Amino acid sequence: MTAPDRSALAARDATDPLARFREFFELPEGVIYLDGNSLGPLPRIVRERVAKCVSEEWGDGLIRSWNDAGWVELPETVGGKIGKLIGAEPESVVATDSTSVNLFKVLSAALVLRPERKIVVSEKSNFPTDLYMVEGLKELLGKGHELRLIENPSELPGALGPNVAAVMLTHVNYRSGYMHDMAAVTRAVHGAGALAIWDLAHSAGAVPVDLSGAKADFAVGCGYKYLNGGPGAPAFAYVAPRHQDEARQPLTGWFSHKAPFAFDHRFEATDGIKRFLCGTPPVLAMTALDAALDLWAEVDMAALREKSVALTECFIELVEERCAGLGLTLASPRDAARRGSQVSFAHENGYPVMQALIARGVIGDFRAPDLLRFGFTPLYTRFTDVFDAVGHLEEILRTRSWDRPEFHARAAVT
Amino acid sequence: MTAPDRSALAARDATDPLARFREFFELPEGVIYLDGNSLGPLPRIVRERVAKCVSEEWGDGLIRSWNDAGWVELPETVGGKIGKLIGAEPESVVATDSTSVNLFKVLSAALVLRPERKIVVSEKSNFPTDLYMVEGLKELLGKGHELRLIENPSELPGALGPNVAAVMLTHVNYRSGYMHDMAAVTRAVHGAGALAIWDLAHSAGAVPVDLSGAKADFAVGCGYKYLNGGPGAPAFAYVAPRHQDEARQPLTGWFSHKAPFAFDHRFEATDGIKRFLCGTPPVLAMTALDAALDLWAEVDMAALREKSVALTECFIELVEERCAGLGLTLASPRDAARRGSQVSFAHENGYPVMQALIARGVIGDFRAPDLLRFGFTPLYTRFTDVFDAVGHLEEILRTRSWDRPEFHARAAVT
Repeated sequence: MTAPDRSALAARDATDPLARFREFFELPEGVIYLDGNSLGPLPRIVRERVAKCVSEEWGDGLIRSWNDAGWVELPETVGGKIGKLIGAEPESVVATDSTSVNLFKVLSAALVLRPERKIVVSEKSNFPTDLYMVEGLKELLGKGHELRLIENPSELPGALGPNVAAVMLTHVNYRSGYMHDMAAVTRAVHGAGALAIWDLAHSAGAVPVDLSGAKADFAVGCGYKYLNGGPGAPAFAYVAPRHQDEARQPLTGWFSHKAPFAFDHRFEATDGIKRFLCGTPPVLAMTALDAALDLWAEVDMAALREKSVALTECFIELVEERCAGLGLTLASPRDAARRGSQVSFAHENGYPVMQALIARGVIGDFRAPDLLRFGFTPLYTRFTDVFDAVGHLEEILRTRSWDRPEFHARAAVT
Repeated sequence: MTAPDRSALAARDATDPLARFREFFELPEGVIYLDGNSLGPLPRIVRERVAKCVSEEWGDGLIRSWNDAGWVELPETVGGKIGKLIGAEPESVVATDSTSVNLFKVLSAALVLRPERKIVVSEKSNFPTDLYMVEGLKELLGKGHELRLIENPSELPGALGPNVAAVMLTHVNYRSGYMHDMAAVTRAVHGAGALAIWDLAHSAGAVPVDLSGAKADFAVGCGYKYLNGGPGAPAFAYVAPRHQDEARQPLTGWFSHKAPFAFDHRFEATDGIKRFLCGTPPVLAMTALDAALDLWAEVDMAALREKSVALTECFIELVEERCAGLGLTLASPRDAARRGSQVSFAHENGYPVMQALIARGVIGDFRAPDLLRFGFTPLYTRFTDVFDAVGHLEEILRTRSWDRPEFHARAAVT
């Protein structure tokens, strides 16, 4: 098979039903942005909405805006918008805190629902903060809980058993882009009497997700990747309606109280998903995410997935044809059905190669020890961007232009 | 003694050494803002800095700004600026998460440092979220911890004992404005072998604080009150340097890891105060707080305290003279040395009276069941504002103009 040429891809862009969404974003000139899976770009509407929030709601409205501008409902308003993208039932998602903090809450809740069981199963290749949060919780509890790590998704059935309380997986792996079959895995987890916790950091806004259909128990996810909520945007937490009455989480701040403005000294949990709130919501950050979510009302998720698959297929084909023999090895699933909206290639000089790409305006990222990671976000990535990015990669590798001191110097954040 | 007249207060404003700071804030026309203890107003510089962060750092810089714009260091940069306002040692404060979440961290750390002790002492009148966080932690641990509540600061010595692990107090009470003697209380707490945790929500930027001099063990506080960081701004956490090697907190997200971008699946705590970070920092909110903190470099804290005391004295004198017999009872300490930068008066119709004040542009707030609460922030409150606010209060009470249906209707946030 021969990879497509640029004119064929330009023709594809011309008929792309999602092409119009590119105008919703402010993308700098000369940049091919393949890192929306790490930090989504700025939606135009966000700039306006944040400015309005700062000047009018905070500046003029002051404390009155907690009521008048709906600040106090933002965790549910924003959560509701996210819920629609992940197949969640109404009133089962809140936007709050960070993904890490929310993991602590849902992990704690899962252990409360399975008090006799001591094991949390996850993957060794899961995003590290997910594993670190389990470690922090089990050390705090000091009750002999265990974090059991599998090396490979195929080991999951063997890792289940009567002492497993919960299986915590990231739906789409941050390194490889491997995508679990959420419904099948959840079924297996439930078959073993355990609860399924899904991290949707690389799924929400990237691939169709159906939490309700999959009968997921808990989920968390991130607001700053495919949801474009801005750097460090609030995260979200999902609790299946069937667990909401029983579920308890330990970060019982005043926003999880039945009547926070009664200022009672005794804690009484509110009903429903708001139990998973904690402190005062970060209004500026929440407003940015809220605005960024509005564009999704017009997005057809099936069309999004179709383009996402086409973009990643096209990238793999082009790289494997044009960069053959240049040291790259595909590190993502070749089967599109098992792949999220990203593609990773391993290269022994991955770090400087990525820096050389970034210097040319092709922005992906590097994940230790050797992965070049490229995210393909269908709302603003064109097929010609894919072609041009591969052209740069090929040239950098052929000319070894990555081998300069400035490209080897490690930055704090990679 | 006769309370001052308006012209005497206008003369005082004219010679106020802090008067120039009012221009740093955007205060709406026709508003006397006495609620900076709940939400600080918008500093002009914040509007500019947030717009720059959104457009240039996020919009143009994209993912590169984690390094290039110093995003990754924001928790320490901002923490360092706050540290200077609260007498903290260098590298002992980080800006992160919410006050509630940070309380969970420092409470957990204190219990780790006092493993044989089971009691946390606090005040029944403490801000409720502080007490709720203790409840959540003790329920999670399930090891027989107890939250012992005193009704009155004088009961503290009697509440101490060999089983007390920590005493958690808010330095300035959110309702009454009562200010503890931090050094004396900490000494008594240490004398009983316990640790002192201070909540500085109503102290940081309001009164001089000397954590180091008082030998405090842990502290937390809020970015959106006297620090003017914006609604739901990031909070902060302080850990005394002598505890930083031993202290452990359970929310061990990737930003508390020794090498977060090595993506190791095993958790290894970083050194020092960064152990008290958790997930990805909220950059927009952190930038707003960072900008708001810059004006403090020019503020003389002794002059701030002097004006704060003068404003609250003036308010009490005027209210007690002009509103005598109208049902108000001082609910704050009469001794200025024991009073923070706020004054509360009880009134049986406190809620509608406050709504009537707000309708006239005098913005304070109501705290159940009966408190009218007024914050006096020396950077932008004028002595004539105090005079005019009391004039409105007197008129509302004399004419009973608070007794209208619209002033009785309860809003979600009070």
